[in-house]
Amino acid sequence: MKQLRIDEANQEATRRMIDARPMLSTIATAAEVIPALAAAERRLLHAGPPIEWDRMSGPLRGAVIGAAIFEGWAKSEAEAEKLAAAGEIDFDPCHHHGAVGPMAGVTSPSMAVYVVENETHGNRAFSNLNEGYGKVLRYGAYDAEVLDKLRWMNDEMAPIVKSAIEAAGGIDIRALLAEALHMGDEGHNRNKAGSLLFAKLLAPHIAGSAASAADAGARRKVLEFLGDNALSVLNPVMAACKAMADAGHGIEGSTIVTAMARNGTDFGIRVSGLGADWFAAPAATPDGLYFSGFSAADANPDIGDSTITETAGLGAFAMAAAPAIVSFVSGKPSDALEATLEMYEITFAEHDHFTIPPLDFRGSPTGIDLRRVVELGITPRVNTGIAHREAGIGQVGAGLVRPPIEIFEQALVAYAERYDLG
Amino acid sequence: MKQLRIDEANQEATRRMIDARPMLSTIATAAEVIPALAAAERRLLHAGPPIEWDRMSGPLRGAVIGAAIFEGWAKSEAEAEKLAAAGEIDFDPCHHHGAVGPMAGVTSPSMAVYVVENETHGNRAFSNLNEGYGKVLRYGAYDAEVLDKLRWMNDEMAPIVKSAIEAAGGIDIRALLAEALHMGDEGHNRNKAGSLLFAKLLAPHIAGSAASAADAGARRKVLEFLGDNALSVLNPVMAACKAMADAGHGIEGSTIVTAMARNGTDFGIRVSGLGADWFAAPAATPDGLYFSGFSAADANPDIGDSTITETAGLGAFAMAAAPAIVSFVSGKPSDALEATLEMYEITFAEHDHFTIPPLDFRGSPTGIDLRRVVELGITPRVNTGIAHREAGIGQVGAGLVRPPIEIFEQALVAYAERYDLG
Repeated sequence: MKQLRIDEANQEATRRMIDARPMLSTIATAAEVIPALAAAERRLLHAGPPIEWDRMSGPLRGAVIGAAIFEGWAKSEAEAEKLAAAGEIDFDPCHHHGAVGPMAGVTSPSMAVYVVENETHGNRAFSNLNEGYGKVLRYGAYDAEVLDKLRWMNDEMAPIVKSAIEAAGGIDIRALLAEALHMGDEGHNRNKAGSLLFAKLLAPHIAGSAASAADAGARRKVLEFLGDNALSVLNPVMAACKAMADAGHGIEGSTIVTAMARNGTDFGIRVSGLGADWFAAPAATPDGLYFSGFSAADANPDIGDSTITETAGLGAFAMAAAPAIVSFVSGKPSDALEATLEMYEITFAEHDHFTIPPLDFRGSPTGIDLRRVVELGITPRVNTGIAHREAGIGQVGAGLVRPPIEIFEQALVAYAERYDLG
Repeated sequence: MKQLRIDEANQEATRRMIDARPMLSTIATAAEVIPALAAAERRLLHAGPPIEWDRMSGPLRGAVIGAAIFEGWAKSEAEAEKLAAAGEIDFDPCHHHGAVGPMAGVTSPSMAVYVVENETHGNRAFSNLNEGYGKVLRYGAYDAEVLDKLRWMNDEMAPIVKSAIEAAGGIDIRALLAEALHMGDEGHNRNKAGSLLFAKLLAPHIAGSAASAADAGARRKVLEFLGDNALSVLNPVMAACKAMADAGHGIEGSTIVTAMARNGTDFGIRVSGLGADWFAAPAATPDGLYFSGFSAADANPDIGDSTITETAGLGAFAMAAAPAIVSFVSGKPSDALEATLEMYEITFAEHDHFTIPPLDFRGSPTGIDLRRVVELGITPRVNTGIAHREAGIGQVGAGLVRPPIEIFEQALVAYAERYDLG
């Protein structure tokens, strides 16, 4: 593979990622749109590269326990653990099924998922519904309160939001993100503006189709939940980023990274020109700010599919657009600027639609080039939430992390072998 | 008056402005809360310093015509003009009655107004409802479409929004602004985030109290209108700024500017230690960007009470928080940074609550000091909309402007005389 040919392949991969137009079109039950979840008796999707029960970290195990109870496969933590340990639950990465989930990312057959369609290239992507902050399944909590909220989201909120999305004619998530980046979001840890834009687009449809005073009360609760959750749009955003990144995957000879994901134990990447293979190594623990009563000693290693945002040119890559985020993830506003400037060093393109006002509306750095990461020794930056290392607790903070350099080195070796370099 | 005594007075004036906590508490009919509007047969409030009909500019005349028809005092443009020219309508500045209105600022007795109460010092302020962009009364348009929208706002929207504000227990506008400044707003020309926060706080109450499917339909329309109007919170913000600025007014010996306002002909200021007097001179015409089909030749001189935002430390003073605004008012993101940095030169304090992320969360420059303006020859910067110079047309663009330096010189002379300086 000559330099020129690689550049051409990367040009195509990044052009497709940027041209992809992800529209949130509806909400469906996971098993309806993800055949693998309907095909097995007990199967769960999870964040990150493949992993089996015995190597799973606390928060992923916690989410598995919660999902098993949610699905009625187990009545207690002990029953759920026994099932999992006996190999009675199949585990598969979300990424193998066009899906992504924040943190543990556990997605079970009867959970509602957002459906995003890339209008430009026709591929689809899915993500579950965001539960808000604190003690939630995606951070490994699974008590009755967590499961009651999941049931309310699934049974009451999802049908109302689904109707509103459809009544709105779908929601253009790329346009929403473009606007949110001009309002201080970076699209990963800070989705405050995007979530307000999301709620604004849905609110008239949610409010306007109440059939009675009682129905209006149910809709009030949905609007409160969406409005109070500054991450409500994170999951549609992640599905949109997955649809964009997938559009750039599978380009012969391309060295562009099309997935970065963590399962709480390993950090894995996939590369456009390297097929379905994962390159993975142990995940680092984020540096960050901890909620009251918690410290770095409580932190689980990096977890979640939300690094799909960085893969698509958002998150830490677009952090210069979001100086206020440092009060959440640590650092100074100038660090936010530095983060984006550094990411231009390892990316192949600048985004046409995602622009950064403080950098004179320069396009965000998009399309991580494996070659540059290894040559320069600069790994991608990631903004992330931090989960407690034990099952059943939840979020303990937020911070910054990078993937291990080895996974890029592994991928470059695989690339050299596959394309017969050197 | 010794330097030290002036500094003490300015310290008190700015401390009061910053400590003021403006809560949006309800909506009322203007004549209910502004006695002067109930006391006369035909009286209108307008933006800026005092002015009579014969000196009024096109957009202010247009708004007067529209308000006279809205109130039923006239059936046509010709009838309204005749009434006004015959002295049959009293005109009084909004500012003389605790009120502020954007652009023409025309407020008539039966119009709905937001009521803001400063919980710290007990004073109140008022502002009419925002009509959205384009052909609207505040920009001097007055045709049937404009008046129909005003009637819908008054009769259908205002009661629903009033109930929602009250059900929410009032809205803390200072807190809303603090959050919006971290989301790329400057609080004057860019109130995109603030308007979304406003809609978010009201939406559950608006949606949740629908009594029937038909009522839900009315509420859908209100949520669409609030959501589509990125300036919907401007008027509550202006009333909040008026409440804050008034809290700093009347401090013996203070050289802090407590009002800046334009009526489309003159730009006037008031000063904390100089009582009710206005210092006014002809307003300049803004430099800016024009909507398609319009140019600088169409522009009216600067108009509106919205400079109360700059008076309170927002608008152009907080522009560093809003780099994306340059696509609307002209310039580059670095100009936005420059604007705020320059305003520190002429202000006495830095705001405790309004902080600017790109400047390491420095407080916004607050409390224009007359002395510094004259000593340094630096006049306040203002972001503004631009009205067509003829009655009946509407907004033609947005841009940047400064008040004439003479009004600060006049005020300093008056200060020297009053306080027996030199």
